[in-house]
Amino acid sequence: MARLVLKFGGTSVADLERIKTVARHVKREVDAGNEVAVVVSAMAGKTNELVGWVRDMPTVAGANAPIYDAREYDAVVASGEQVTSGLLAIALQSMGVDARSWHGWQIPLRTDAAHGAARIEAVDADRLIERISGGQVAVIAGFQGISPDGRIATLGRGGSDTSAVAIAAAIHADRCDIYTDVDGVYTTDPRVASRAQRMEKIAFEEMLEMASLGAKVLQVRSVELAMVHGVRVFVRSSFDDPDAPALQAGSPVGTLICDEDEIMEQQVVTGIAFSRDEAQISLRRVKDRPGVAASVFGPLAQAGINVDMIVQIISADDASTDITFTLPEGDYDKALGILQDPSVGIEYDAVGGSKDVVKVSVIGIGMRSHAGVAADAFRALSEKNINIRAITTSEIKISVLIDAAYTELAVRTLHSLYDLDAAS
Amino acid sequence: MARLVLKFGGTSVADLERIKTVARHVKREVDAGNEVAVVVSAMAGKTNELVGWVRDMPTVAGANAPIYDAREYDAVVASGEQVTSGLLAIALQSMGVDARSWHGWQIPLRTDAAHGAARIEAVDADRLIERISGGQVAVIAGFQGISPDGRIATLGRGGSDTSAVAIAAAIHADRCDIYTDVDGVYTTDPRVASRAQRMEKIAFEEMLEMASLGAKVLQVRSVELAMVHGVRVFVRSSFDDPDAPALQAGSPVGTLICDEDEIMEQQVVTGIAFSRDEAQISLRRVKDRPGVAASVFGPLAQAGINVDMIVQIISADDASTDITFTLPEGDYDKALGILQDPSVGIEYDAVGGSKDVVKVSVIGIGMRSHAGVAADAFRALSEKNINIRAITTSEIKISVLIDAAYTELAVRTLHSLYDLDAAS
Repeated sequence: MARLVLKFGGTSVADLERIKTVARHVKREVDAGNEVAVVVSAMAGKTNELVGWVRDMPTVAGANAPIYDAREYDAVVASGEQVTSGLLAIALQSMGVDARSWHGWQIPLRTDAAHGAARIEAVDADRLIERISGGQVAVIAGFQGISPDGRIATLGRGGSDTSAVAIAAAIHADRCDIYTDVDGVYTTDPRVASRAQRMEKIAFEEMLEMASLGAKVLQVRSVELAMVHGVRVFVRSSFDDPDAPALQAGSPVGTLICDEDEIMEQQVVTGIAFSRDEAQISLRRVKDRPGVAASVFGPLAQAGINVDMIVQIISADDASTDITFTLPEGDYDKALGILQDPSVGIEYDAVGGSKDVVKVSVIGIGMRSHAGVAADAFRALSEKNINIRAITTSEIKISVLIDAAYTELAVRTLHSLYDLDAAS
Repeated sequence: MARLVLKFGGTSVADLERIKTVARHVKREVDAGNEVAVVVSAMAGKTNELVGWVRDMPTVAGANAPIYDAREYDAVVASGEQVTSGLLAIALQSMGVDARSWHGWQIPLRTDAAHGAARIEAVDADRLIERISGGQVAVIAGFQGISPDGRIATLGRGGSDTSAVAIAAAIHADRCDIYTDVDGVYTTDPRVASRAQRMEKIAFEEMLEMASLGAKVLQVRSVELAMVHGVRVFVRSSFDDPDAPALQAGSPVGTLICDEDEIMEQQVVTGIAFSRDEAQISLRRVKDRPGVAASVFGPLAQAGINVDMIVQIISADDASTDITFTLPEGDYDKALGILQDPSVGIEYDAVGGSKDVVKVSVIGIGMRSHAGVAADAFRALSEKNINIRAITTSEIKISVLIDAAYTELAVRTLHSLYDLDAAS
């Protein structure tokens, strides 16, 4: 017997038939003797419809006013998950499974006051634990909690994953199963490298890097939370046969995200991630004086633009420097506007850039104890004539910025280099 | 300055444009210096969609089990009003009107545990009063409250009118304005009698009879509640120009439902109501012995069938009696089945009936002090050759059951008889 949290996203509960399929997944785990809490998203499309209604309301006039009251946005948008949780509870009851729905405020799952992107502060799980210990399935509306002033607060996009992990931590669950539209975490995107393999296990730190660097299986926030609280997360497919025998130790069909101690044979490199949502900006011959970096990056930071990789080349012959950096593609035009604004006062000869770049990353905890991993990568890319525009490294990852046209070639080359290819 | 509750039903908030129009109605009242709470229904069609989803879930197997858990039904269905309240709050804020949404559990509006058709037990209005006294509009999700065990409970169909009146009583409102698709309460249905007139005022007792006897402007429950708590209810049209000057004393455009003391010149007859939702059943030559009425009506009551008018004719020559009674049309077949069931053991010669009947009622507090009102009605109907199948009277109403074909003729005849016709 185990205590489990099962999380189902919007496509898994897209219509009444799928909700009934979800109920069969849940029943299977209950029949296997497990204590179960379920976290559900809104039916696919519902959240977007509700958000659309809020956005179609007239905006508040006046400078510095928010477009709409985030507390009211939350009150409207959180209704989608509430509907799903009630419907799933009814579906479970109809199968003879004791179940009840829980809205965020009923648990209560307490958040801060940052409506629309609230952070979870505490989960008062006593009543939940009492009920699930008694054999009742808790069907929890994801993505929401209650703010300090008693209003409904939503956790922002991907919040249901975060809800699920937070609930799992609070009820001391043995595992948090995230049902999604893929059957696990892969060594890289199988659409780019056909020989990508599903991993049986991946360490929290590696998953965090994979998620941060472009893998879209899980939200970064939920992985962080799982790592901090040591919640074992199992990513599996909601398209699996719902009536197949419950998952037993030794027969996983998915990927377990866990502490590195739980992974017997740690590979040097675990996976290759890539992100197309990148842009590069280069400033030529910036006047080199103390504080030049601050003069460039200060105004960008004030505008809420996150700069990632930075390369600075000081020319030998005069007092100037070339600066190249990367940023999210969506911020490219805004950043150029700031840099070219005379009132900002950055002195340089020329500015240019490209949105046609991609960041490819090699990730693995094993790098900590292995020298030469980065050098191998640079050599392999060079042999394929792939030009590296920028590099960043950390203890467990190496990222390179390259022309987007070389994405597939670079990913496949690195995937083979580190022996990640499936046997053909 | 007054303290007002404004209630808008589903057609008044059917889409985003109409919600913006509602916001203009609310702003007009705020600009006139009033303290305002608004009660809203779900957008037209939403409640039916949600109810349909619940009903499409598989039903619970086994005898005596409910079709679905009413607590989960409520958790799903109540979301419709929550969405409207958030959207209206945003629309108001965008016009510079301070506003916030309130769900039933946030007020809290406390109900009993009869989920799906809960009764309001108490409204803890302190926080509401504090906010609206401070100039903030309270936008309240109608139709819902919180049950003793902390679950969402809905009040059943028409519950938003009841919410509005209960809120008005709790915050000691000067008036509860019900915005609807008609501009008031008429002396009878204008589609049947073109010379029907809008009443400026009607007493609670009369309105209660009108609603109970077929007029569909307001739910019976909400009128009862208004009468008990002395809440003045003003029925007006949501299609009025929202930017017209706020209602002033002496310039009403609607119908005020109030205490009879507030009505200066009380007419003998106030209105003519009729209900087509009637059926008649007759039992011929029921064996006349003590308790015969109980033997007929006991089994019907046990089946939840409300019998209305009863006529019993004892024949002079033998020990039998003829019994005729009316009941809601929807219960007709069920009632016939019970009466014809041998195991129920009612002894009679023949049973028959008709769904093709209508109940026409004459209503007026003035009847209390006027003799002959009923006799006038019977004579007038007789002159038109309209056969009266059954009669019931109370202190302030006379109801007759007639063939449905004569509905319009009877209504118009009585409307003229009691001087209710508008000048032509």
